[in-house]
Amino acid sequence: MGSVFRFELQAVCPETGARAGLLHTPHGVIETPVFMPVGTQAAIKGVLQRDLISDLDAKIILANTYHLFLRPGPEVVRALGGLHGFMNWPRAVLTDSGGFQVFSLDTLRKVTEEGVLFRSHLNGDQHMFTPESTIDVQRALGSDIMMVLDECLAYPASHEAARASTDRTVRWARAAYTHYRQHADGTQNCFPIVQGSMFPDLRRQCAEQLLELDADGYAIGGLSVGEPRALSLEMTEVVAPLLPPGRPRYVMGVGMPDELPEYVARGIDMMDCVLPSRNARNGYFFTLTGRVVIKQSQYKDDAAPIDSNCSCYTCRNFSRAYLRHLFLAGEMTFSTLATLHNLRRYLDIMREIRESILDGKFPAYLRERRKVSE
Amino acid sequence: MGSVFRFELQAVCPETGARAGLLHTPHGVIETPVFMPVGTQAAIKGVLQRDLISDLDAKIILANTYHLFLRPGPEVVRALGGLHGFMNWPRAVLTDSGGFQVFSLDTLRKVTEEGVLFRSHLNGDQHMFTPESTIDVQRALGSDIMMVLDECLAYPASHEAARASTDRTVRWARAAYTHYRQHADGTQNCFPIVQGSMFPDLRRQCAEQLLELDADGYAIGGLSVGEPRALSLEMTEVVAPLLPPGRPRYVMGVGMPDELPEYVARGIDMMDCVLPSRNARNGYFFTLTGRVVIKQSQYKDDAAPIDSNCSCYTCRNFSRAYLRHLFLAGEMTFSTLATLHNLRRYLDIMREIRESILDGKFPAYLRERRKVSE
Repeated sequence: MGSVFRFELQAVCPETGARAGLLHTPHGVIETPVFMPVGTQAAIKGVLQRDLISDLDAKIILANTYHLFLRPGPEVVRALGGLHGFMNWPRAVLTDSGGFQVFSLDTLRKVTEEGVLFRSHLNGDQHMFTPESTIDVQRALGSDIMMVLDECLAYPASHEAARASTDRTVRWARAAYTHYRQHADGTQNCFPIVQGSMFPDLRRQCAEQLLELDADGYAIGGLSVGEPRALSLEMTEVVAPLLPPGRPRYVMGVGMPDELPEYVARGIDMMDCVLPSRNARNGYFFTLTGRVVIKQSQYKDDAAPIDSNCSCYTCRNFSRAYLRHLFLAGEMTFSTLATLHNLRRYLDIMREIRESILDGKFPAYLRERRKVSE
Repeated sequence: MGSVFRFELQAVCPETGARAGLLHTPHGVIETPVFMPVGTQAAIKGVLQRDLISDLDAKIILANTYHLFLRPGPEVVRALGGLHGFMNWPRAVLTDSGGFQVFSLDTLRKVTEEGVLFRSHLNGDQHMFTPESTIDVQRALGSDIMMVLDECLAYPASHEAARASTDRTVRWARAAYTHYRQHADGTQNCFPIVQGSMFPDLRRQCAEQLLELDADGYAIGGLSVGEPRALSLEMTEVVAPLLPPGRPRYVMGVGMPDELPEYVARGIDMMDCVLPSRNARNGYFFTLTGRVVIKQSQYKDDAAPIDSNCSCYTCRNFSRAYLRHLFLAGEMTFSTLATLHNLRRYLDIMREIRESILDGKFPAYLRERRKVSE
């Protein structure tokens, strides 16, 4: 069976290697570089599906295999038509493998060669994720892009522990990929994840071994786990040049607004992060010129919008004074309005970056952004 | 200065006395009978202003004087252009007087002839509401319709206590109305509130005394305070016929979906209630054929919408299975989707009622609804 999946490279910045492309999926074409809003439980917190389209024009969102495996369960989602039917979301979806949650939610029971035994954070029930089973769960979820199960090491880790873990991640990726290929019908893609903690040699070795899979795309995982930012960027610099130019590259779980162009400058095409939405709910707005902490009393009767350069619904319609009131009053619509703004900011940044790459002006854009964020 | 306020009676049901009309305000024409969504803190919980217009076509909403007096304070709202500017809400707003909250939030300190001394439920600060001061607060809020300060008695009350309280409510209404008239510039209307607990003689006497004010409209308060429903309707039956036919009549704080036509059948034009939105957040959906309790396991993989007769965004796009998942997962968008549906149901009911009155078919409509709710 044929597949519509195709990654089309449109422009590469000769100075930095930043890329602009088109990722064709069965649920639409994704302009890269792209930021993917996070919809952990098959919902973007505070933002309706129609607003993801009309306000944000998000072309792809992320959902979480661990959470959806536990609730409502993959068979419920499958019966309702996969995530696209269940959520009534016509565009692309990427699901992570659940590995990150199993390792980070303190539900870890035991890692074996076979997989990872864990307890549900909801009710303590014991479950097992194997490389094959997480692919099967994601096949039920029907995501456009599936991720292989990987082991996520805490930071810092010893070289020895990191080597053992990275080797296991590679073996799991091979098992997952074999299983994926056996069932592939062209409707879903699958990306392995480069691990290796903060050790360049392990990162390099992991990438090289995963290249043998000739995968649909590649992710870089295990970043944003508490390490200094310079180190995350360094690991990306080590790995990205090893990855095949014709396949999309996804750095998982990054980052702050000023980091987005930095990852793109290192050849990254896809990113996701809970920061814009989580910060929104906590009253932090990202703007072109910095952060607005809305609870501050200086905004008490400030009639200006959060960011006069922004054309999101929130900035077009509401004052800082009103938003501050909603935040202090604990009104739900605050979270919605703030999330609409922050996600719009992230998606606008990615659109600006993409434009600048296509126009051959990315190095100037990058210099400008670095100046602002100093 | 002239005023655009005008209540235009379009049709009266000869059998029941149910009325259809148009209430002209500086912020639009309100088709009556009307249900007013409650936006206590200058926000409808979970629903954005644009959705109130595009999804619900709400012509008037309610905001709360007590809450807005405490936070953000009337002067902040005034500085931002009153509630219309502050909320960026172009349509009509009604503010209650704050009396109900002072008496119901257990913040009551002391009632004197002058007014009521109370403590803020937010920080314990002591404040005084007088008939004049609550008008001044509402003048700062800039609502289209203001309510006079009234004393809200708990149910049940003795005839003696009710008489003393009702007499005070009348004296307060006179003081408020004198103050209102002194400052009236045609941009705001003001309604006194008929009290009298569950005593027909006190209700009648209160209504007759308030008629002397020749007020812009009249409210019936002190219902839905724990009394049997038959009693609330009985009190309405006592009061409504005494009120001037050419002025709008507002029953405060009602009701369940099957009660809406009952109040209209007793000559009521305006209603408000937190029930549709509060029930929504708690997972209860109102439908044409009854209530859907979404947490029930029967909906686990139910692909049907909440109400196939409903054309709200929620019913047009999402299954019971997805909504149940969002509810159990504690996702904010559940509250938004459920509130959009329940408010739409209420506003649709009022539109059906209005249509049936205009078409001379209200008695048949009422019989039909009574049959369903039996």
